[in-house]
Amino acid sequence: MRLSPRHPRYRSLTTRVGLARAHRTGLVVAEGLIAHGRGEAFDYLLGERTSPSARRAETAAAGWLRAARRPVVSVNGNVAALAAREVARIARALPRVAVEVNLFHRTPGRARAVAGALERAGVQEVLGVRPTARIAGLPSDRARVDRRGIYVADVCLVPLEDGDRAQALRRRGQKVISVDLNPLSRTSRTADLPIVDEVRRALGHIADDLERPARRSPARWAPFDAARALSDALETIDRRLNRAAARRPTRRPRA
Amino acid sequence: MRLSPRHPRYRSLTTRVGLARAHRTGLVVAEGLIAHGRGEAFDYLLGERTSPSARRAETAAAGWLRAARRPVVSVNGNVAALAAREVARIARALPRVAVEVNLFHRTPGRARAVAGALERAGVQEVLGVRPTARIAGLPSDRARVDRRGIYVADVCLVPLEDGDRAQALRRRGQKVISVDLNPLSRTSRTADLPIVDEVRRALGHIADDLERPARRSPARWAPFDAARALSDALETIDRRLNRAAARRPTRRPRA
Repeated sequence: MRLSPRHPRYRSLTTRVGLARAHRTGLVVAEGLIAHGRGEAFDYLLGERTSPSARRAETAAAGWLRAARRPVVSVNGNVAALAAREVARIARALPRVAVEVNLFHRTPGRARAVAGALERAGVQEVLGVRPTARIAGLPSDRARVDRRGIYVADVCLVPLEDGDRAQALRRRGQKVISVDLNPLSRTSRTADLPIVDEVRRALGHIADDLERPARRSPARWAPFDAARALSDALETIDRRLNRAAARRPTRRPRA
Repeated sequence: MRLSPRHPRYRSLTTRVGLARAHRTGLVVAEGLIAHGRGEAFDYLLGERTSPSARRAETAAAGWLRAARRPVVSVNGNVAALAAREVARIARALPRVAVEVNLFHRTPGRARAVAGALERAGVQEVLGVRPTARIAGLPSDRARVDRRGIYVADVCLVPLEDGDRAQALRRRGQKVISVDLNPLSRTSRTADLPIVDEVRRALGHIADDLERPARRSPARWAPFDAARALSDALETIDRRLNRAAARRPTRRPRA
């Protein structure tokens, strides 16, 4: 594919190529590619950039991670393929953040592949390669977590998470920060703090915030209006669709 | 995955499983899975059903195929995986329709796999396994077509087509009927007759129409308002988003 860096969708298209490559090496499963496509469609509708509302959610998320006693970032194959560097930046900026492998389609080989990608990006310790505990109320293969990570976390940053798992964490009284481009997904609607943004942009912005010195000791659980964040995202999509509907479609002269 | 047939999204979810399987057998490429995910997102926004406007487009498409002297249906890996039976029904109902393999990521093995899937579904003759002609204005690997099929067709039904190819066909003066769930895609905006519907539903409905005896000799190229069809689809999405925005997101009581 001859793709110019000045192509308006260059970043989205190179991301796609990178994810297909990560699939060939076994990091990303077939279902992960389909899920990425769903995200691509929503990102396209959102204008492929971070909205002001999403940026505020990212700053709030950085505050929650700072305020947490035992924060954790959960990482699956797609997150490792797309944003391992950003996860490493978060772990460096806030060393008490645990980083845990968390796979929907778990095999020992994939768990090691995800951990390997994180370690190459600079994460010192990766939990969850050999799970040591279970979350109640989930099918057995998806319940497996690390006793030192998600199991005991007070704040869970779960990018690209499945709805059942997000709900199970909330039922346990854990604060859930999601990163999901679909504002209508069960994960987005379940999270205490839903970030509707592309995962690399979202985690990069959270890292930016964490790398700045905290201005003052953060208020524990500064309140966040999740419903408002989701309706902001729906409105952004709506505005773009209305603009598109108002434009007449390209009609080329017949040859 | 324990999935009940009564699950509201049963069909979409089993389709996803089927496509992942078709990928493991080599019929569908990694990029095809991502493209499917994009379609899933738009189908979700459209309510995962055929809108009245899309159904009218499908009936118009059946009329155009009937009115054509040399109609062709172009089939790629995703179309073969999702709707080989529907393609076979179209070919049976209107025997002068040529069926041609048309791959964005072409290898001889994949071309044979697509042809094999079509033949197993009942298509008698599959063109394009060994391309014999080129369409001007396209990169060489994507320009390759069959001299007896797309190359000479007056009406091309191109489900899940790439925008460059759709434009190249139009520039040649060929009538383009697209099937694409994204009403904003270049393919949808290029087509003379864009169908905004899921490929299996769309081709199934076209087959339904072709299987009914034609009431009268069809008017050659009955006019079709492509811009209207696309704005209908955008309005459907818009209505669903507005309804979702009006509903307050599910907030579960904290444990």
